[in-house]
Amino acid sequence: MLKVPQHQVAGHEAGIGKLGPLVDESGRFYKPLQGDERGANEVAFYSSLSTNSGIPEHIQRFFPTFYGTQLVEASDGSGLLPHLVLEDLALGHVNPSIMDIKIGSRTWAPEASEKYIQKCLKKDRESSSLSLGFRISGLQIYRSKELGFWKPGKKAAQKLSTEEVKLVLRRFVSSNTLNDLDLRPDCAFASTVYGGSTGILSQLLELKAWFEDQTIFHLYSCSILVIFEKELALKGKNPGAHIKLIDFAHVYEGRGVIDHNFLGGLCSLIKFISDILTAPSDCRIDISAKADQKNLTADNGVVADHKSHTASDNGVVADQKNLTVSDNGVVADQKNLTTSKNGVVADQKNLTASDNVVADHKNLTVSDNGVVADQKNLTVSDNGVLADQKNLTVSDNGVVADQKKLTD
Amino acid sequence: MLKVPQHQVAGHEAGIGKLGPLVDESGRFYKPLQGDERGANEVAFYSSLSTNSGIPEHIQRFFPTFYGTQLVEASDGSGLLPHLVLEDLALGHVNPSIMDIKIGSRTWAPEASEKYIQKCLKKDRESSSLSLGFRISGLQIYRSKELGFWKPGKKAAQKLSTEEVKLVLRRFVSSNTLNDLDLRPDCAFASTVYGGSTGILSQLLELKAWFEDQTIFHLYSCSILVIFEKELALKGKNPGAHIKLIDFAHVYEGRGVIDHNFLGGLCSLIKFISDILTAPSDCRIDISAKADQKNLTADNGVVADHKSHTASDNGVVADQKNLTVSDNGVVADQKNLTTSKNGVVADQKNLTASDNVVADHKNLTVSDNGVVADQKNLTVSDNGVLADQKNLTVSDNGVVADQKKLTD
Repeated sequence: MLKVPQHQVAGHEAGIGKLGPLVDESGRFYKPLQGDERGANEVAFYSSLSTNSGIPEHIQRFFPTFYGTQLVEASDGSGLLPHLVLEDLALGHVNPSIMDIKIGSRTWAPEASEKYIQKCLKKDRESSSLSLGFRISGLQIYRSKELGFWKPGKKAAQKLSTEEVKLVLRRFVSSNTLNDLDLRPDCAFASTVYGGSTGILSQLLELKAWFEDQTIFHLYSCSILVIFEKELALKGKNPGAHIKLIDFAHVYEGRGVIDHNFLGGLCSLIKFISDILTAPSDCRIDISAKADQKNLTADNGVVADHKSHTASDNGVVADQKNLTVSDNGVVADQKNLTTSKNGVVADQKNLTASDNVVADHKNLTVSDNGVVADQKNLTVSDNGVLADQKNLTVSDNGVVADQKKLTD
Repeated sequence: MLKVPQHQVAGHEAGIGKLGPLVDESGRFYKPLQGDERGANEVAFYSSLSTNSGIPEHIQRFFPTFYGTQLVEASDGSGLLPHLVLEDLALGHVNPSIMDIKIGSRTWAPEASEKYIQKCLKKDRESSSLSLGFRISGLQIYRSKELGFWKPGKKAAQKLSTEEVKLVLRRFVSSNTLNDLDLRPDCAFASTVYGGSTGILSQLLELKAWFEDQTIFHLYSCSILVIFEKELALKGKNPGAHIKLIDFAHVYEGRGVIDHNFLGGLCSLIKFISDILTAPSDCRIDISAKADQKNLTADNGVVADHKSHTASDNGVVADQKNLTVSDNGVVADQKNLTTSKNGVVADQKNLTASDNVVADHKNLTVSDNGVVADQKNLTVSDNGVLADQKNLTVSDNGVVADQKKLTD
């Protein structure tokens, strides 16, 4: 019997009508295959992992075990769907404290589509990715049997300021997390979780050494999961702190170059963690940082994402009665006016004067990015362009394709 | 008497009517202060360098000595202008081989202006910065007394593919650079220039160790200059190989975060150089890479930038008779139509029907990015928007600022 995972902190969650990962009781994690090339990419990556001779054994252990793909009943009730079958990383844990940290100041590959690049770049700039080289995609910190987990909203977590990230990374390994953020985290478990020869820092440094050399993969939008069991630490036992790399839908070939984007972000995370080990008692948060904490003050156990209104990713109310507002806030359809994503009136040739908009400028064709694509039918009187340009061919991106005629 | 530097490989060059750096005979380099905040930034950075206790002595030596600012006659004949006075890094060199390597896959700070970010992002994507984490901004390789220097065009150098960068970094330390690129560079001086306890790799590793820890500065668009004297290497003497950091017009405070962008790019460069030392004889260039070499085949000593036609940075012919074409190929001015940089008709309210363009839609104000900024004066009949929106205030970026009224 498959069920919804108890300890998921980031990514799509399974639910009624919602597609998300599932787990079984034998310790397997079923991740729905994304239908486009992302699903295929992730399968290809996991399939190559175990046979790739470029990945040494001490690095292999940072990846979840892969058991192939399998058709299972999807969580959204849509029937049988192919799923990746992976090791359930929460298996054996009772109350795991977990952070999902997406590594890299850039979550997009140079080879990605323009649309995808713009979407990611916007998120990277709005979150802490650009400034810190990583963002916390989600986390849960165990508090007590009575209080359960502290689990801030994902959107808030992704936008933490530098001082807030410092605070959260300290709070993650502290015993005094029962109350709100004004308390100074005591970093009681810093040395047993982050420190030591087998602790988190040591594992991150192993990973770093590999990333300084490996040119096999570039991992975009990939996360490091940090897991430990606080109750074991409280009892003075080994809390089993460990890291795993997850999410490989945007893996590209390295082609002889190291993954400098992942490596830079990893080094930034390492610096934050080392600083805690160097000065665990230094939990001084200055006043400006306190003012910054507004994102996290809604400390009510689980700050759920607000779902009471329909709003798109960037806060635009997408549907106000009949008004259609596109991704970047452009009113997309004012009567018959077609406005493209970046506000360009994409097709002026079909607009007529009766709509009270641009009349047909003779045969003027305006391409998607506002370039006048074809000037050869323009005449002097209409828009002031000189007639001797009538033989010029202007290509899609505004480059005059044939400059030889100009030298005559 | 100030004169034009002999060995400049990147940046603006002084000339008749052209502003650029100058040198004197005592070993000082005069760099014109950029009039905007870039000049002020660079002065502030150099001024803080010697007094900054966070920069250890073994790192201080990687920065040029700073002698303050001075008013000197500008190279373009425009009269007295303030200049940064720096150490002339070519002083004492007879025929220095030099590479200027701009570090970082991103040359812009998150805090920079939107216009500057877009300009840099475009260059980073078009050059090797995004893929390699650095780009070669310019270089000169000494060949012989008769042939002088091999100095490829700057634009070609910045766009080298991975295989081409490998080739150039090998060629830089080879003795057989007399003829064209089909020759396999012998890497004869790799061990004396790149290798050894005081060689280039060793210096880069010292710099790397500092960047893993320092959170004082973030250096955007900063270069590492690599210099050595090939004739000394040919005679079996120490070629004086060393690195210097230059160009600090885009330095920002680190604010508790390492410069993960610079560090990532630096690690990528280090990997390229280490690989040459590990396998100096491995100069195999596969066929696809050879096909890629078109950028560099114009090996005629100095491939000058072509100046025979007026073309803007992205290949758009900027001025065809009276046609004004803006940066991204948009025809900016068609009679009285004002078209903004991204093709948006920026201001429709002043357009009148007589120009055969958009008539005044009542009071419709269209902002720079195509968002209808103020819908409160719109009425139902004109564009189909429902009347009950007349109390909505739509802010500049399309966000409905006050959603409380919607819940009524």
